[in-house]
Amino acid sequence: MIDYEPFLSRAGESMQGSAIRKMGVVAAGIPDIISFAPGYPDPAVFAWAEFREIALALLGGNDPNALQYGPTRGYPPLVEALSSILGARGIRATRDEVLVTTGSQQGLDLIARILCDPGDVVLVELPTYTGAIAAFKDVQADLVGVRQASDGIDLGDLEAVVARERAAGKRVNCIYVVPNFQNPAGLLIGLEKRRGLLEVASRHNLLIIEDDPYGELYFCDDEAHLTRPVKADDVEGRVVYLSSFSKILAPGFRVAWIAAPAALAAKLDDAKQAADLCTGSLDQRMVFEAWKRGVLAARVPGLRAHYRHKKDTMERAMKASLGNLLTWREPRGGFFLWASLPEHLSGEALLAQATAERVVYVAGAAFFVDGSGQNTIRLSFSAPTPDRIVEGIGRLARVIQRAAAGPSPA
Amino acid sequence: MIDYEPFLSRAGESMQGSAIRKMGVVAAGIPDIISFAPGYPDPAVFAWAEFREIALALLGGNDPNALQYGPTRGYPPLVEALSSILGARGIRATRDEVLVTTGSQQGLDLIARILCDPGDVVLVELPTYTGAIAAFKDVQADLVGVRQASDGIDLGDLEAVVARERAAGKRVNCIYVVPNFQNPAGLLIGLEKRRGLLEVASRHNLLIIEDDPYGELYFCDDEAHLTRPVKADDVEGRVVYLSSFSKILAPGFRVAWIAAPAALAAKLDDAKQAADLCTGSLDQRMVFEAWKRGVLAARVPGLRAHYRHKKDTMERAMKASLGNLLTWREPRGGFFLWASLPEHLSGEALLAQATAERVVYVAGAAFFVDGSGQNTIRLSFSAPTPDRIVEGIGRLARVIQRAAAGPSPA
Repeated sequence: MIDYEPFLSRAGESMQGSAIRKMGVVAAGIPDIISFAPGYPDPAVFAWAEFREIALALLGGNDPNALQYGPTRGYPPLVEALSSILGARGIRATRDEVLVTTGSQQGLDLIARILCDPGDVVLVELPTYTGAIAAFKDVQADLVGVRQASDGIDLGDLEAVVARERAAGKRVNCIYVVPNFQNPAGLLIGLEKRRGLLEVASRHNLLIIEDDPYGELYFCDDEAHLTRPVKADDVEGRVVYLSSFSKILAPGFRVAWIAAPAALAAKLDDAKQAADLCTGSLDQRMVFEAWKRGVLAARVPGLRAHYRHKKDTMERAMKASLGNLLTWREPRGGFFLWASLPEHLSGEALLAQATAERVVYVAGAAFFVDGSGQNTIRLSFSAPTPDRIVEGIGRLARVIQRAAAGPSPA
Repeated sequence: MIDYEPFLSRAGESMQGSAIRKMGVVAAGIPDIISFAPGYPDPAVFAWAEFREIALALLGGNDPNALQYGPTRGYPPLVEALSSILGARGIRATRDEVLVTTGSQQGLDLIARILCDPGDVVLVELPTYTGAIAAFKDVQADLVGVRQASDGIDLGDLEAVVARERAAGKRVNCIYVVPNFQNPAGLLIGLEKRRGLLEVASRHNLLIIEDDPYGELYFCDDEAHLTRPVKADDVEGRVVYLSSFSKILAPGFRVAWIAAPAALAAKLDDAKQAADLCTGSLDQRMVFEAWKRGVLAARVPGLRAHYRHKKDTMERAMKASLGNLLTWREPRGGFFLWASLPEHLSGEALLAQATAERVVYVAGAAFFVDGSGQNTIRLSFSAPTPDRIVEGIGRLARVIQRAAAGPSPA
């Protein structure tokens, strides 16, 4: 039997599966489990009938390229459409500044690869999205955390961390943020602070990697303006912006995009050529047609109401049974409710008991690059039905109440 | 204006677009151009009607996961099907040894990332596939060429190169080969030599990366046995095998796979999590259904005849007008005709004149990691119709005849 360890690269040696994906595997094997773990959109609100119609038209054989290889940059009409979608969000991006990616996870991966050498510091919030942690770790970047306030990243701490890391001789080029309904903490970076972030980035010569999968999914119509992307005010060209159709159409298409300064977009295009040549041709056309036919625009308001209702349901159930044990901030959009357990309890340690009660979540520690956050958990309300949310919170409440009452008998 | 150079990683600095993809962009802009450049399958033989039927069923809403995120490893029924497809090729692979990838390009990228540190030597044939060159270069591996004989890789040269590079202190862990109808040279590695390759790999402790997109597309039914994968006789677990549905169903789905020892497959799974989470869910189901319904099995014999006819057409036209100027070996399968110009002519230099005549190919030098092959060209016969092949070879003949006759007036 060959020992494969000596064949691995340093990156290969250190790679690990994500906590969220592992929970998915655990959950899939247990009957009647209720999973608050993955940030899955609800297939009940996918545009099935419209997709069926679109697929029929696309597979009619009139466009031989519908199943052919395509340009690495993306299906040209989709690239044009993205300019327009970005425009509606306040971002001006020409065709040279847009790249279609195979999900935003690929976007993060490509960005990590063109920007980070091993040992380079990438700044992230405490907590931050695990998929970004994985992408940057896989290029052996050094992830350094910046504290979060109730209106997002703490700019004072950001400046202190940059100064400290540079004084230690580190290359510090970029900061990764999810300004809208952050995964996992659900926070919005305040408008004032977004401008402040640009100012700090300019002063310290940093690029900002802005990940925005949830911006359209605000729960309160008069808060739409609060989701204005940082990139909308990026006069210097410091922001690399990612967004996706996964949460507003369907993730199974794996269609997302990056808007970046043309010079970086060209490098990302080169990197993508070697990573997968092109994003799925049929998938890109499905998404483009859904946009062109107005399916996307017609559907998003309903999604907001749909997910708000689930959020309300989860919060109501939590207030009733866990109000004295968990603390959380009300999410104003997105898919996640981020909660803190009493200080002495560990989200990780409780997971075994939760699984036994047939409910799972993601232990919050996975989102912290500094080992903190042991008492936090991320609950996703997006996929389960309201009934299952209520039932699941009931199960979770039994677990937490038992744990808070004293040492478990096990 | 920001200078983005200082923000790039070393990998980012050195990345470049591929010669083939660039030809695609050039060709797309010229009316009536005939392109022998990209290895595109012919959409005329895609199973449009069957795909339409399958898509209708899949998008009926009965399977909510058809548009959801899926397991990184792949859609489980497809993973099972791949075990069976591999079995028919003589390869035993359990579920733990299979990973679905977003095209084989992603497979190459993931393999490069888990195996290669900067400066590691990866051995490749002279010539070899540009997509593999790009994937290995993007992890800053050092590509070292091994000579090719008429029955594929020269094993004597392989041993000499391994010894030389290791004596120079280099880490030499793997060799990349395309044993069936190689891209670009169209060669088969002989059966005897396949066993020899396993033996050399064992003796020198190398992994073999076996890329097999064209194995099913042999032109002569009694030569089917010559395509037996190296991995079929891999008793030690030294072979990482890649194959794809791109050439036998359609590339727009971006569905391919790796069969690898379980320990490496697990690392590839970790790497894929950070690279794109999962391959397209609808795409994987489309491909699975095409296999399950027998569409794939029913179609492949027709593909062999279809591409053989195109190959014959191209060869006949070349013999008539270029028989005294080009030399080539008759392809016995696959998509490519690999030809040598007279020694003093350069495939690269002729490209401008060819483009002016509205015909393009790939200059062969792009496939050589040692700067050789200046007088070679790769002609792909897979996509154009027979009529266009004849017309395109006519245009090419004018260019080459003119160049061979003397210095161009320009």
